[in-house]
Amino acid sequence: MLAAGFVWGVVYPYETNFSRITSRLVKRNMADRQKNFLYLKRLGIDTLQEPVVYMRKDCHVCRSEGFNALSRVRVSTDKQSIIATLHQVSEDWLSHQHAGLSEAAWRLLDAEDLQIAHFSHTRPVDSMSFVRGKLYGNPLDQEAIDAVIDDITTGRYSDVQLAAFVTACAGSRLDESEVAGLTRAMVNAGKRIDWGEGLTMDKHCVGGLPGNRTTPIVVAIVTACGLRMPKTSSRAITSPAGTADTMEVLAPVNLSLKQMQQVVEKEGGCIAWGGSVSLSPADDILIRIERALDLDSEGQLVASVLSKKVAAGSTHVLIDIPVGTTAKVRSRSYARRLAKHLHYTGERLGLHLQTYFSDGSQPVGFGIGPALEARDLVAVFNNREHAPTDLKDRALMLAGNLLEMGNRAPEGMGLQVAKQCLESGAAWQKFLAICEAQGGYGEPPVATHTYQVAAENNGVVAYINNRFIAKLAKLAGAPGAAVAGVDFHVKLGQKVSRHTPLFTIHAEARGELEYALEFLNHHPGEIRVEEEGL
Amino acid sequence: MLAAGFVWGVVYPYETNFSRITSRLVKRNMADRQKNFLYLKRLGIDTLQEPVVYMRKDCHVCRSEGFNALSRVRVSTDKQSIIATLHQVSEDWLSHQHAGLSEAAWRLLDAEDLQIAHFSHTRPVDSMSFVRGKLYGNPLDQEAIDAVIDDITTGRYSDVQLAAFVTACAGSRLDESEVAGLTRAMVNAGKRIDWGEGLTMDKHCVGGLPGNRTTPIVVAIVTACGLRMPKTSSRAITSPAGTADTMEVLAPVNLSLKQMQQVVEKEGGCIAWGGSVSLSPADDILIRIERALDLDSEGQLVASVLSKKVAAGSTHVLIDIPVGTTAKVRSRSYARRLAKHLHYTGERLGLHLQTYFSDGSQPVGFGIGPALEARDLVAVFNNREHAPTDLKDRALMLAGNLLEMGNRAPEGMGLQVAKQCLESGAAWQKFLAICEAQGGYGEPPVATHTYQVAAENNGVVAYINNRFIAKLAKLAGAPGAAVAGVDFHVKLGQKVSRHTPLFTIHAEARGELEYALEFLNHHPGEIRVEEEGL
Repeated sequence: MLAAGFVWGVVYPYETNFSRITSRLVKRNMADRQKNFLYLKRLGIDTLQEPVVYMRKDCHVCRSEGFNALSRVRVSTDKQSIIATLHQVSEDWLSHQHAGLSEAAWRLLDAEDLQIAHFSHTRPVDSMSFVRGKLYGNPLDQEAIDAVIDDITTGRYSDVQLAAFVTACAGSRLDESEVAGLTRAMVNAGKRIDWGEGLTMDKHCVGGLPGNRTTPIVVAIVTACGLRMPKTSSRAITSPAGTADTMEVLAPVNLSLKQMQQVVEKEGGCIAWGGSVSLSPADDILIRIERALDLDSEGQLVASVLSKKVAAGSTHVLIDIPVGTTAKVRSRSYARRLAKHLHYTGERLGLHLQTYFSDGSQPVGFGIGPALEARDLVAVFNNREHAPTDLKDRALMLAGNLLEMGNRAPEGMGLQVAKQCLESGAAWQKFLAICEAQGGYGEPPVATHTYQVAAENNGVVAYINNRFIAKLAKLAGAPGAAVAGVDFHVKLGQKVSRHTPLFTIHAEARGELEYALEFLNHHPGEIRVEEEGL
Repeated sequence: MLAAGFVWGVVYPYETNFSRITSRLVKRNMADRQKNFLYLKRLGIDTLQEPVVYMRKDCHVCRSEGFNALSRVRVSTDKQSIIATLHQVSEDWLSHQHAGLSEAAWRLLDAEDLQIAHFSHTRPVDSMSFVRGKLYGNPLDQEAIDAVIDDITTGRYSDVQLAAFVTACAGSRLDESEVAGLTRAMVNAGKRIDWGEGLTMDKHCVGGLPGNRTTPIVVAIVTACGLRMPKTSSRAITSPAGTADTMEVLAPVNLSLKQMQQVVEKEGGCIAWGGSVSLSPADDILIRIERALDLDSEGQLVASVLSKKVAAGSTHVLIDIPVGTTAKVRSRSYARRLAKHLHYTGERLGLHLQTYFSDGSQPVGFGIGPALEARDLVAVFNNREHAPTDLKDRALMLAGNLLEMGNRAPEGMGLQVAKQCLESGAAWQKFLAICEAQGGYGEPPVATHTYQVAAENNGVVAYINNRFIAKLAKLAGAPGAAVAGVDFHVKLGQKVSRHTPLFTIHAEARGELEYALEFLNHHPGEIRVEEEGL
């Protein structure tokens, strides 16, 4: 009969010869604890989003708390409290009275110079046991996912732990109900916008197709036709530019929730960065790690996309899935699996969702990289002669679909209504008005370092590897440097002669251009011109 | 007929209006590149093993190379070259002419103050594609594992990438041939010792049983009986002490390969830290990440253990697998699966291997933590009255087995021969001689902060949670602080009265003791005294 046994529970302070610490320690009063402080110092160290605190290894706080290198430490001021990773310092550039903070820690703590801060151990991150359980085959139920996402959102996971979670969910390791659970947890962890009565349209492209920047055109057309479309976009994960990166070239995108609401109230739509309105803060943290790992998994993809849609208050969502051998979605069967996941989770979260499989065989438009893509957008909006027709056609197709979903065009007539709106200049006027409301329109800048690559032979452009092009643009500096990227002068199937320019690499810094060229030289055959008739 | 087509390959320098950079850039001479240097500065920042370089965001190197926060950067002096993670600095404590280095970077680069260093981008880590492939279900063949382990050993993986690899291999995700492949790759990545003619004995305990520190006793007995036993041990992964941590309390364990060989030549055996002789450098890097994740996976466990055995030149290996509900190996079925993996990989790598399942229901000895375990060892060696009999019995059983494997005792007589060797004092003399050869024997130190916990009721010690005890010892500071840990005064099944001391927590710092006590208070029922007969 074990159950009825007496259970030992409370600490009993039993004094012995060895014990120099008695119950005083446990009851140690607050005045005593108050001694455990240091003065904060901004070190201006950029560690991206990971908060880091720097302390002398032999300062009184490290000694009394028993902190070690890479300890996870709670840093508290009288206003805020964060968890940071400890980097211990043993040289004199940091004094024993100071605790240095990285930029992320400084920002999160909203700190002031020489402000007093207290330091303590953090409890072990209990939800990591669910991540370990998942690795051993236990599914993640809603309670487990909620605990993990809550700990991630409050900054309790270190980068290494975040990497373990991302990896544990990678491949096809999350089932439908786990993906829906993850999506729900991500929505609950952030703000949620209520647009009131009526439909709220939204679109998303699964990505992997360089230059596929239809969103600004679609939003302009759909809102010009009287529908509400408050679009929040993400920055690049593993690509050379996300829609937010490209849009930022033309207008500010870091809108607060309030600013976004004002823009939508005025113009019916916006194109803002989702992260700055905390729609899915957990997702923004995970995206940084996915980027470092170049890993963008199925389950997290669905959760990332749909959590932002639900949090943004969308009711009708169109998802563009480009399919191509070198696109993110390589096969029709994977596209169907992804669509199934999207429909399942969308339904569970109350969305009207449509998926659309598009051609993913080559880059869209000419430019790849924020500024170059922005230039293509402006050309399409203004119906310029050399504007990329593929970008225009894709945007019209999507806008047409949304107009039909929102009952602004009869079935089968959406494309025609969208085309009329764009070619009449109404969409461009609406786009300029949105930019103005977001903080002002600006022309795309141009790179100072460029390098043009030409065909070596007469022939036909036979093969373009999207992944290679994306990597090349990233090595040239995109999206960190807005002007960086790759500018195509040809399309698949186009006839070229020897010396015909194929593409130009753009970079902000010489080192980056050089690095991209080195990569190009080491990978021949990723863009191929082949003789006709062979 | 695509195959016969002309393939575009080399960069063709085609000049246009946009091109400000021409072929000069590609052929940029060395003198030009030499400008890209900074003076190294030791910042004394402890980031454990991750090399970090600190540069001003706006220094000429960051600008010309286009480095970003967390870029992976190659740092080269005229002697050495390493890969480090970049933390960019925007405050004046670091000058534009200096590049600061973390301790790990300083050590790896063998740097000197104000030494000149050059900086360049690193190529993307190609072998990460194998890790991503594994996540999508592609098995890791030998070529893939070799590439991954080679990149890890040369420091090309960031912590986040290491975490992804560890996680991708966790659970039961490596099959037999992948585990053997991983083991082989780890052996090839480090040094390998050749002991020449004759048998070389070795043992390993799979761990998870606090205080199970049989190794020093086993080595002393086996070598005293004339066998060669050059033992390399690891430090703690997720436990409060590894054998190397405990042994370090009594004698130096950071032996170079040469020092180790001298000790073995003189005494027939040693107890050294495996990491300092680079026997499996990849494993030492992975262990740090496994510790941060509290993750110790099956495949990596086998590879970690056996790679060190093969690299250490062992021919005969006995593996102790303690089985218990709160030990690392919780069930007989898991123990059998692990043994199967060990035998499979051992055979592929040419080892004579035996596995031994032992009782894993409670901690071994009294002390848990380096110094407390060392104290228990000394008591057993000296046949003291209160020496822990369970530790003694386990050590004798293992030593007996090894004596039989090495033909120093007839079958079934090993235990008796071992017992005689220990109780006669021959093993203690041999142990002291080994300590002397390793650099000198020292008595275990004692903690300044202790706290004793007593029973609240009369009854019998009915339950001890090994994992809880291990965590408690770690929170008290073990193994970082050698004196820290938990000292048991009772064993399972022992009768106790109200106020009988159950265990004492030892700590080096007050903060750590307090933290352990807080944890204890929040987790009642993990050590239970229950009334008899209930």
